[in-house]
This record gives sequence, structure tokens and C-alpha cells, in this order.
Amino acid sequence: MKITEGGVTAARGFRASATAAGIKYQGRDDMAMIVSEQPCSSAGVFTSNVVKAAPVRWDREIVRDEAKNGHVRAVVVNAGIANACTGQDGLHACEVTAQAAAEVLDISKEQVLLASTGVIGAYLPLERITAGVHALAKSLADTPEASDAASRAIMTTDTVNKEIAAEITLDGKICRIGAISKGVGMIEPNMCTMLCFVTTDAAISPVMLDKALRAAVRDSYNMISVDGDMSTNDSLMILANGMAGNTVITEENEDYRAFASALRELLIRQARRHAADGEGATALFEAHVRQADTEEHARVLAKSVVNSSLTKAAIFGHDANGGRILCALGYAGVDFDPDRVDLTIVSDAGEVALYRNGAKLDYDEEFATRVLSEKTVTAVCDMHAGEAEATAWGCDLSYDYVRINADYRS
Amino acid sequence: MKITEGGVTAARGFRASATAAGIKYQGRDDMAMIVSEQPCSSAGVFTSNVVKAAPVRWDREIVRDEAKNGHVRAVVVNAGIANACTGQDGLHACEVTAQAAAEVLDISKEQVLLASTGVIGAYLPLERITAGVHALAKSLADTPEASDAASRAIMTTDTVNKEIAAEITLDGKICRIGAISKGVGMIEPNMCTMLCFVTTDAAISPVMLDKALRAAVRDSYNMISVDGDMSTNDSLMILANGMAGNTVITEENEDYRAFASALRELLIRQARRHAADGEGATALFEAHVRQADTEEHARVLAKSVVNSSLTKAAIFGHDANGGRILCALGYAGVDFDPDRVDLTIVSDAGEVALYRNGAKLDYDEEFATRVLSEKTVTAVCDMHAGEAEATAWGCDLSYDYVRINADYRS
Repeated sequence: MKITEGGVTAARGFRASATAAGIKYQGRDDMAMIVSEQPCSSAGVFTSNVVKAAPVRWDREIVRDEAKNGHVRAVVVNAGIANACTGQDGLHACEVTAQAAAEVLDISKEQVLLASTGVIGAYLPLERITAGVHALAKSLADTPEASDAASRAIMTTDTVNKEIAAEITLDGKICRIGAISKGVGMIEPNMCTMLCFVTTDAAISPVMLDKALRAAVRDSYNMISVDGDMSTNDSLMILANGMAGNTVITEENEDYRAFASALRELLIRQARRHAADGEGATALFEAHVRQADTEEHARVLAKSVVNSSLTKAAIFGHDANGGRILCALGYAGVDFDPDRVDLTIVSDAGEVALYRNGAKLDYDEEFATRVLSEKTVTAVCDMHAGEAEATAWGCDLSYDYVRINADYRS
Repeated sequence: MKITEGGVTAARGFRASATAAGIKYQGRDDMAMIVSEQPCSSAGVFTSNVVKAAPVRWDREIVRDEAKNGHVRAVVVNAGIANACTGQDGLHACEVTAQAAAEVLDISKEQVLLASTGVIGAYLPLERITAGVHALAKSLADTPEASDAASRAIMTTDTVNKEIAAEITLDGKICRIGAISKGVGMIEPNMCTMLCFVTTDAAISPVMLDKALRAAVRDSYNMISVDGDMSTNDSLMILANGMAGNTVITEENEDYRAFASALRELLIRQARRHAADGEGATALFEAHVRQADTEEHARVLAKSVVNSSLTKAAIFGHDANGGRILCALGYAGVDFDPDRVDLTIVSDAGEVALYRNGAKLDYDEEFATRVLSEKTVTAVCDMHAGEAEATAWGCDLSYDYVRINADYRS
């Protein structure tokens, strides 16, 4: 896999655009569109929150319907209002948005996926949305600039836009995968929250695309956390239009494995950016659990560490508080022998062993503070129970997280 | 049940004391002792963290052993060092502490329960502990002042000490129940964390005492949360010495129900104090879930709301962000119909309905802010799914929580 320039317009046949529809923000783009020249295989993973935003309900019906999920042509996104907890009005807004896109793009509304991000419990201004859709359709382009503009239009409290693209060779043909995404108050209801759109020109059936996506998400987006709150709007969608010309992937062959592996690596790189840009974050905090008894346990343990508010506050304070990390392992809900756990903190400044066999070691506090003062800090937890491993990504908990979330709406 | 003065010395035959052993803090008491004139039925609930502090391991062996749990005479507690993640040295420290208490009180070491709270991964200074035990034994008294001193000696980041006592009549005899407790960084590894000691002169068998305690804890301490981190040291112990002279409770009769009900109410009052005194808290935040389909679901939903960092930050900002509350219900892991949920915020300033049938209502933001600016704020979540209800208690998330936990050790 080779990382390249561009985002969702890197793959053949995809165009993107952005516009300032004035939905909530002033003086910036707040709507984006992605359109494929050809019908796409599609797959998506969505929030498991019982309270699902209207656009999530809309997309699930399309992606989960075998008759529809091979024909997707467009995605329409808005920032500012999440269209969640909006009842029948919210579902009607989806209908209106998709219908507007369908008319202007000359496709059917079942070929349009939707996503919203922003405040919960606010209602979309339908006239501005419809005008926005018309403006978006007029400015579609297949340039890197168009993808860049789209990636900026979907931001809420993100401080940087998030774009990525890569090339792989399948069946002798060069295929491209690209993505844009947003969301740094993971996984939270107000920014509503994590959106990721992936495009590829690889030819792959909806079933295999879904399989590759779920495997990739398990190790990437499902392993990041900023604050443990799970949004009503989280959505990750992938569109594959087949224009690279490779033989369609319909089974777990070599091409499938190459595609799935590239998608996994791409999404891990992208997911880490969300964690590093976490609301108020001053550091990327990585938990690497190794020698666990099973992969599932390794994942649960690693997630528990990056989710611990106390550990996150200690990282913010550059405090080598290994006890909080051991404690977070302990309440993860996984059984292990606490008297066998080793804990080491690693960063660009070096590494410092804090615990061995579950008991605290004597270490240089000053050096430990230096190790903990880097922009990326990794806690390596060695369980001595097996051979499975997993990594989770989060960030520290700072004053700014509180400031941002105490008055986000005002 | 009548609330009375005094704490753990309210019940007949219990004495307490405190001393400055110099374990970590200077210029304040940091060890406490509770002693019963007669052997006690005992019961305890302890942290479910896989990483358990040495004193928790010690107590579980006594409380869970039928041959031992009817003979407990004393509890020895220290603040400053948690004796957690300390391996064999930690277990040895327990042995030394209990042995010192046994010698000076002329009992056996299996009659001594232990508790520690403070920094994880630090080792207890054994000479100071032993000297402290001797000083504690010399100053034991059955006065309210002695209980008050003990309740202060066990504090870490608590801003107020927590004592309570009540009287009930069982079988024509007046029985007393009293408690002291500490812990406001619920449930966290560094303060290690929640300790509660309950004494009663009611006569009750260990089996029925355990049953009453578990039922009471389910509705009280298990329904509070400050930060979702679960300590390595959480311990709640109850000692019943039978000196009230009532007929021993050995079955679920009327006396049992009266005792269990009083214990439950007492522990709910006490648990609320922990939440209100939560690290950095400016408000007590209460979630009341009603018309849920089952009690267990009501409890899980209520806990999810008070655990949401985003909701807690909104409470700090007096922001009527009902969407965050609906969202927290949605990811609790309980199925429900989001389109039937009503949400109302209640405080001394009045009440404001934010959502009805899952959709946002039009309300006066200024008035909502006033309702949210009180010292106690309650979110009433009506699920319209059945008749079960539950209440959970937490607090807001403030800058001070970050400050306290970013450099607690320094």
C-alpha cells in the first residue's frame, strides 16, 4: 500500500464539493457532497446507540437492503445540526434532502446516502438545505481541492481536517482508496460526531465490501475514544464504484486480503488522527496490550485504559501514575492475574518501566515526567497470559475539554 | 427510622479513635480504629476490580469464612497510602497491622478487619503503622467526638467528613445503626477510594446481615458515580454486635424488613453525600428513571446518565443540553423505544420539560439555565415502558476535577 495525495476524489470517477449553506455557522462551508460517476457497492457501520439520528435510520435502510446497496451514487452531508431527536420532522428532512439531490443529479432518492453532525434536538432548515444541495451539485469536481473543501465543510470542533488516500494493485490494476472524516469529541452526542466517508474505485461486491469494512473498523475506529460517550450519528460509509477495472472481488481470495489489509491500515491511520485531535487534547495517548489470552480481551483491556478519566487527567499532568492504568485494566471486565502484569510507558523521550509483576518499581520520577511530556505517549501493558495483542487510541483530559463541553451550544 | 446524632459510636458497645501516624500527611490524623465490646456478625462488599488492594484480600477471607465472620471485633484504617499493587509486601503489611491490633486489644488477628485509602503502588511504613495502632488503642472512646475524629482521619480529597446515625425499634428494643465513610473521586484508583464502616447494636445473623447489606448497597453506593473509575480498595463493612438485646434476626421476618429498610435509607443518604462532594463538583446531579420495563434496566439507564462526561460538563455549564441525556440513555446497553421518552429537568428553581416523545420541545432557555443553576439538579427520564424506577447520583464535571487529578500525587 502506498499513501498518496488526495482524499475522496483520489479514486477514479468520484467528485466532491462544498458550500456555505448557512445552516448554523456563518462564513464557512457547512455542506458537502460526494458523487460517483457509476453506481457503487456500498457498506456502512453506524452508531449502536438506541437513539439514532434520522440520517442514520435513512442510510441503514439503503445499505442493509440488497436491492439498493449496489446502486448508491451520492452522499450529502451537513454540519451544525445533527438532525437527532427530531421525531417525524427529522425523517421528513431526510426525504426532502435526498429528493433534492436525486432531482439535481438525475438519480433516484434511494441512491443518496445522508449524514448530519452538530447539535442534537435542533431541526434542519429545509429551504437552506435544498438550496445547498443545488449549489453542491453545480460545483462538483474530481480535484484534490474539492476533497479538501469537503473535508473542511464537515468539521465541527475538529481543529484540523482529516483526509487520506492510498494506492494498491489488485489483479494488475491500480486501485485507489480515499477518505475524509471528522469527529474529535468521540463518541459524543453534541457534535454527533464521528463521520467518515471512504471512496474506492476497486471492484468488489457489497457483501465482501461489508466484510472488509467491519474487520477494518474493529481495529481502527472501534479502538479510539475521546470521552466514552457514543453518538447518535456516528456513521462510516464506503462506496466502491469498480472503475479501476480489476476483476470483481466476490470471495476471500488474495485480492480481497490485499484490499482488506489496505483498508484496515488506512482507517487505523485516519482513526489515530481523531484521537490526537480529541477535544482539548494536548497528547495522543496509546494503550498497547500484549500477551493477553485472547484478542477480544486485549481489545477490551486497551479500550478500558484509554477510557479512564483519571488516567487521562494524569497524562495531561505528565504524571507517571501507573496505578491508575493497572486499576483501569482491573475494572475492564476481563479476568487476569494482576500479579503478572508489567507496565511500561514509551515515548520519543525514551521508556520507563513502572510496574513489574503487578508491583511498583523504583524509577526516576523526573525522567518519567520527561517521557510523559511528549506529544504521543504509549502505555505498554504486558499481561503474560497468552499471545494476543491490541492497541487503542485516546487522548488526555484537559481543562479545555471541560471548557469546550460546558458551553458548546452558546 | 429516626436520624440521630453520632456516627459509628451511636450503637451500644462501639468505641472509636483517631491518631496522626504520619503515614503521608503532616499535621492531621490519618489512622482510625473502631472496636466493639462484643464479637460481631460482619458482612462486607468490596471492589469488583480484578486488581484488589491487599487489605481487600485480607477482609474478604474473614467476611467470607463462616467460622470467622461472626467474631469480628475491630477495624483499622489508614489514609494516605492505599496498599494496592504492592505484591507480597502488601499482604505482609496487613499481617503486621492486624497482629499489632490483636496484641494491644487482646483478641486474635482474624478478628481484625483492615482498610487503606491513598496512593496506589506506595508501601506502608510498618513502624509508623504499628505505633499508630498502639496510639489508637489507648484513645478509644464511645463518644460522638470519637466517631467524628475517626470520620476525619480517613478523608483524602473529601472536603467534608461524612457521618450518619439512626434509631429503629426492633422487637420492642431500640437499635442503633451508624456509619462513617469517605471517597469523592468515585470510583477511582488514586484515592482508592470509597470506604464505609457501619456499626449497629442490632442482633442479626451474618447471613441476614449480608443479605440486608447487599440489598441496601444496590440502591445506594452502587448508584453513585463521580467519574466511572472503579477503585482497587472500595470497601463497605458492617459490624453488628447484638447489644440492643432484640431477638436475633435469622429469617426474613418483620424485624428483618425494618432493619433492611433502615439500612437502605441510611446508606442512600450517606451515598448522596459522596456524590455531592465529588471531586471538583459544584452540583449534585441526580438521574431519576421511571416507567422503565424492569428495575435492572432503570438502574442501568440512570447510571449511564450520571456517568456521561458530556452531560456532566453541560451541568457544570448550566446548559439545558437534553440531547446528551437522551444520548446517554441510548448507549446504556438497554433496548427501549426512543420515540416515547420524555425528559424533564427539576430543581429548587422549578422544572422544565426538554423532550417529549423523543423530540425536542420549545422551552425558555433562560428559565432552563436558572433551573440548572441550583446545587441539586435532577433529570427525570420517563421511558413509558413499564412501572420500574431507579435513581442514580453523580455530580458535574468541572475544571477543578481536572486540576485535582492532573497532579494529585505532587
